Amino acid sequence: MRFPSGRRLYGLTAAIFAVCTGLAATESAGGGIVLLDHTSTGITATQKSPRVKVTPAPIRCVTLEDGFWKRWMEANRTQGIPALYRQLEDHGVVENFRVVAGLSKGELKGPVFRDSDLYKWMEGAATALESSDDPELRRLLESVIDAVAAAQQPDGYVNTFFVNELSGQRFRNLRDEHELYCAGHMFQAAIAHYRATGSARFLEVAIRFADYLTRTFGPGKIEQPDGHPEVEMALVELYRVTGRREYLDLAAFFLKRQAFGKAGQISGHAVRFAYLMAGLADLYAETGDREARQALLELWEDVASGRVYITGGLGARYAGEAIGERYELPNEGAYSETCAAIANAMWNFRMLGVTGDARYADMMERALYNNVLAGVSLDTTHWFYVNPLACFRDHQRQPWFGCTCCPTNMVRTLAAIPGYLYGRSSEGIWVHLYDTSRLSWALVDGTKVTVRQKTGYPWDGRVELTLDPAEESTFSLFLRVPGWCQAASVTVNGQPFEGRLRDGYLEIRRRWKAGDRVGLELQMPVQLVEADPRVRCNLGSVAVQRGPLVFCAESVDNPGVNLRDLELKARPSLRAAFRPDLLQGVLTLRAKGRDVPPEAPRGPLYRPAGSFSPSWRDVEVTLIPYYAWANRGPSQMVVWMPHAR
Amino acid sequence: MRFPSGRRLYGLTAAIFAVCTGLAATESAGGGIVLLDHTSTGITATQKSPRVKVTPAPIRCVTLEDGFWKRWMEANRTQGIPALYRQLEDHGVVENFRVVAGLSKGELKGPVFRDSDLYKWMEGAATALESSDDPELRRLLESVIDAVAAAQQPDGYVNTFFVNELSGQRFRNLRDEHELYCAGHMFQAAIAHYRATGSARFLEVAIRFADYLTRTFGPGKIEQPDGHPEVEMALVELYRVTGRREYLDLAAFFLKRQAFGKAGQISGHAVRFAYLMAGLADLYAETGDREARQALLELWEDVASGRVYITGGLGARYAGEAIGERYELPNEGAYSETCAAIANAMWNFRMLGVTGDARYADMMERALYNNVLAGVSLDTTHWFYVNPLACFRDHQRQPWFGCTCCPTNMVRTLAAIPGYLYGRSSEGIWVHLYDTSRLSWALVDGTKVTVRQKTGYPWDGRVELTLDPAEESTFSLFLRVPGWCQAASVTVNGQPFEGRLRDGYLEIRRRWKAGDRVGLELQMPVQLVEADPRVRCNLGSVAVQRGPLVFCAESVDNPGVNLRDLELKARPSLRAAFRPDLLQGVLTLRAKGRDVPPEAPRGPLYRPAGSFSPSWRDVEVTLIPYYAWANRGPSQMVVWMPHAR
Repeated sequence: MRFPSGRRLYGLTAAIFAVCTGLAATESAGGGIVLLDHTSTGITATQKSPRVKVTPAPIRCVTLEDGFWKRWMEANRTQGIPALYRQLEDHGVVENFRVVAGLSKGELKGPVFRDSDLYKWMEGAATALESSDDPELRRLLESVIDAVAAAQQPDGYVNTFFVNELSGQRFRNLRDEHELYCAGHMFQAAIAHYRATGSARFLEVAIRFADYLTRTFGPGKIEQPDGHPEVEMALVELYRVTGRREYLDLAAFFLKRQAFGKAGQISGHAVRFAYLMAGLADLYAETGDREARQALLELWEDVASGRVYITGGLGARYAGEAIGERYELPNEGAYSETCAAIANAMWNFRMLGVTGDARYADMMERALYNNVLAGVSLDTTHWFYVNPLACFRDHQRQPWFGCTCCPTNMVRTLAAIPGYLYGRSSEGIWVHLYDTSRLSWALVDGTKVTVRQKTGYPWDGRVELTLDPAEESTFSLFLRVPGWCQAASVTVNGQPFEGRLRDGYLEIRRRWKAGDRVGLELQMPVQLVEADPRVRCNLGSVAVQRGPLVFCAESVDNPGVNLRDLELKARPSLRAAFRPDLLQGVLTLRAKGRDVPPEAPRGPLYRPAGSFSPSWRDVEVTLIPYYAWANRGPSQMVVWMPHAR
Repeated sequence: MRFPSGRRLYGLTAAIFAVCTGLAATESAGGGIVLLDHTSTGITATQKSPRVKVTPAPIRCVTLEDGFWKRWMEANRTQGIPALYRQLEDHGVVENFRVVAGLSKGELKGPVFRDSDLYKWMEGAATALESSDDPELRRLLESVIDAVAAAQQPDGYVNTFFVNELSGQRFRNLRDEHELYCAGHMFQAAIAHYRATGSARFLEVAIRFADYLTRTFGPGKIEQPDGHPEVEMALVELYRVTGRREYLDLAAFFLKRQAFGKAGQISGHAVRFAYLMAGLADLYAETGDREARQALLELWEDVASGRVYITGGLGARYAGEAIGERYELPNEGAYSETCAAIANAMWNFRMLGVTGDARYADMMERALYNNVLAGVSLDTTHWFYVNPLACFRDHQRQPWFGCTCCPTNMVRTLAAIPGYLYGRSSEGIWVHLYDTSRLSWALVDGTKVTVRQKTGYPWDGRVELTLDPAEESTFSLFLRVPGWCQAASVTVNGQPFEGRLRDGYLEIRRRWKAGDRVGLELQMPVQLVEADPRVRCNLGSVAVQRGPLVFCAESVDNPGVNLRDLELKARPSLRAAFRPDLLQGVLTLRAKGRDVPPEAPRGPLYRPAGSFSPSWRDVEVTLIPYYAWANRGPSQMVVWMPHAR
């Protein structure tokens, strides 16, 4: 198929063209580049990526239905994306491009990486359009592309900061000035736009910029590392879409300058680290680089075993927005930037792709359902940048930040959720995340297959799947058994099935025919969770988890309870109840605990051990999912609670 | 007495002039100002300060002998002060003044508050000279004064940042640009120089600058608060020395703009807060301002009951160098800036002066013996800016910081130690801190009295005092019984004495004659200390304290022990031994504990509560005083240790 440059195809229109049948036809776009079929790629890899074991389903092949994530997606498209666009206009971020293009007169505004915020918004808008057409959003996005394209310099460079008197200062300080980071976000936005529309007009802007970069960076050219990693993922993706090896090589160049032998630097900036790892996983996916593989496995193990919050967050420290030392995981002082949790999910999704190992899906799920979602209000218009696990002063989300990377990262992440659910390999279809949805895709051999999934997940561990292959076909269905789940059972057409567990996926290999039904039951009791005792801040405390969700006690549900004193009883007998009226529908837990009444005498701050016992008072405490806190006005919250054994 | 401006009197020479007999004669200095006798002031108040209950002894009246502090003072004078001067020269901080004065050509260097570092060094040097003459240091200090004086602008203003093209930008951003903070440190340095020498030549520079400030700030002039408090203490002190009310009024103006009703802002910048409080205490000392008194008492109670580290440190957060919320006292992530602990000691010394209540001396002692001393190496040439209470990566002090406020604050603090030991009131003589020393002073009625103190404190709780009043005299000797001490006894001339405990001071009122001996025995067992359970990070943990000293386990004494796993046994049976060879003489403690061997399996980072038990191993652990850690190469350390009850 050939799409003339500038032709626009959106959402449902484009869906007509969606072949969803595996390896893509290539097409020629403007500039003489042969492009991968825009409908054929998942969010991180193509079927051709040599080291990818499980290829993600393209977003257009997944329809979210009435389940957990659909509401978030809809809110994001109808409220979050428009609200954030207004903020971007109000703060001059869009106007900057018009000013640089000479379309408008005004003053350039915002921090040095401001362009990336618009690009992330554009990626989010384009990705949202892939799931649902929205004419107004579509027109808006195209008008923004007009501004960005007009701001491109003749040599391909685009950045609204390094213009006018600073135009000679490009790449003067890669560590701090984020030019390549901005470039990467442009490439990702352009690819998302291409995927959503088939139009290459924004992609051509990105390609011109990328070609400028390949002329500028590399051996014998500028040889510095890129500062804030991000462009690596984007360059690999651009290579996937265009097939042009020089983008992959440039990604490899940046990665090799930064990534290897840096285990000692894992305590540094959380977002930079996780983006670097995600880029490295992309490199490994395309090249099989052994050094990359080794670094990925070692660093992942280090993070997972000692440097990640129970919410999937990364970043113990405000200073340097850094991950910190092993087991340095303060709750009240947690930084746990929303972007870092998003980056953690992105990294783990890539690790999942190249391994097919459910532990990466577990980590991704932990991040998505807890820290990532906590970063945004239920209506998707207010944001947390920092995500503490305990907060004893009234706190609430904000509509904007001077450094607003997290909100714009959120809109693109929520829009991409359908892309995280399903995958395929030469063996069959994989279900990574559970939600009511429909997959309309094909096996690797081209056989079309539809999978309908129905579940109350994450509130309930029952999942029903109906498979409709276009013709009877032998393949495996891989169902993830989450790491939190201690007992799972499966039926096929109502009969118990003893599946094989392979790296955390239950494999059901059989000859499937249309209408075959699979029932999965994941036991989902409330769990008291403890941390490794080296996490000193959690010593003697427990967190409450049910399924993938971490719970918290929020002040608004517990009036009069002193959250800082709150302890759970030895047997807190947690009682669950689904409350459809509350917080757009959440499961709540009630538990027995104790606190100290405000009027009770307290001893000195420091005193001989055992010399003073506070006057405890029994209380009933209500817990809600962590992600849902701070949606009812300013409030306080605690995740880890001391627990009498 | 009349001292011609520019006449220099130092140390032992000046001591000949020391009257040490109470209310000062006044003298006329250059500029027609009547100055207080330079020998008559303590470090924070004069005998005339109306609300001062206990006036501190002038430094020149106190001679430290072979005890705990003398070594620190000597090291500071002979190593720390010269080493820091070299750093100040190497980093252009002295040269800046020569450049501004036109004495040298060069580029101005350093952060906006750089002048304050030189002034703090000058204050330290001058104060050191008050205890010990040192011709080389004396000459050096005078040459630096030459440079500062030469850099003064015709209108009195001095600041090496706001000159040349920035000369029109004075006071453009008081919050961040520290001009008044720098001014305050100049005034304090000039007063210290005047006290040490009787020469008013530097004081005149300060007075000219202060007069510029009184012309510039105040009602109807610039009415902003001063940004980083510090100048308030200095202005009150300048008022004390000169008797000029306008300096006190300007201090009151700045304090009133910032201090009152700010209990809610107590979570902010730790050093700014504590300097503000110290200035407020000075204001109260001179005026009896009731609003000031109320704020001081309330805010002190708030800090002491919930926002101070066991080491006397302030500042839970790197972000904003802030104190943080009540009970937010992370150990590994503690900021606990050295300057904040110094400021805490300064504030509490002033509170002690206006109340005579030992709880302020307790807090001052806690800060001085723990956090303050930890801020400097044993040889006084390397520094910590941040003072964590747990550090699980190798860490060591540095010879300089880009923001080097702490080292220069340390030199002036160590030099001023003699001024913290003794006080007097109309009732008699007060002993605040115990150390082998000699006080040569007078009662308020003018009767000369010498107190000789001999003690092994803080290693040992026995204190012997010999009083030599010039003539038999009835007065009280007030001996502080520290808050950590649960049993104290006293003898007078070998006979048990039942003294009255007044606000933490044991009062011995009698008719004293030359050679009277007092024996004080402070029981000093090793204590396991717990924190209020609302300090979540210390839950289930204990710190080890003996006397005023907090102990820690340092990696260098505990090879092979995993400090992050280290727990103390329920009955750790701590055994004390004084090691004269170690760390210039410290008491060490040995205790039974346990850790997990490195090769032992560990469970997942998060797991169902009780589902995994680590393989514990019994270990013997050695503890040293917290202040002495990191003096034997890079090392790790922990103060709070989990403790099986």
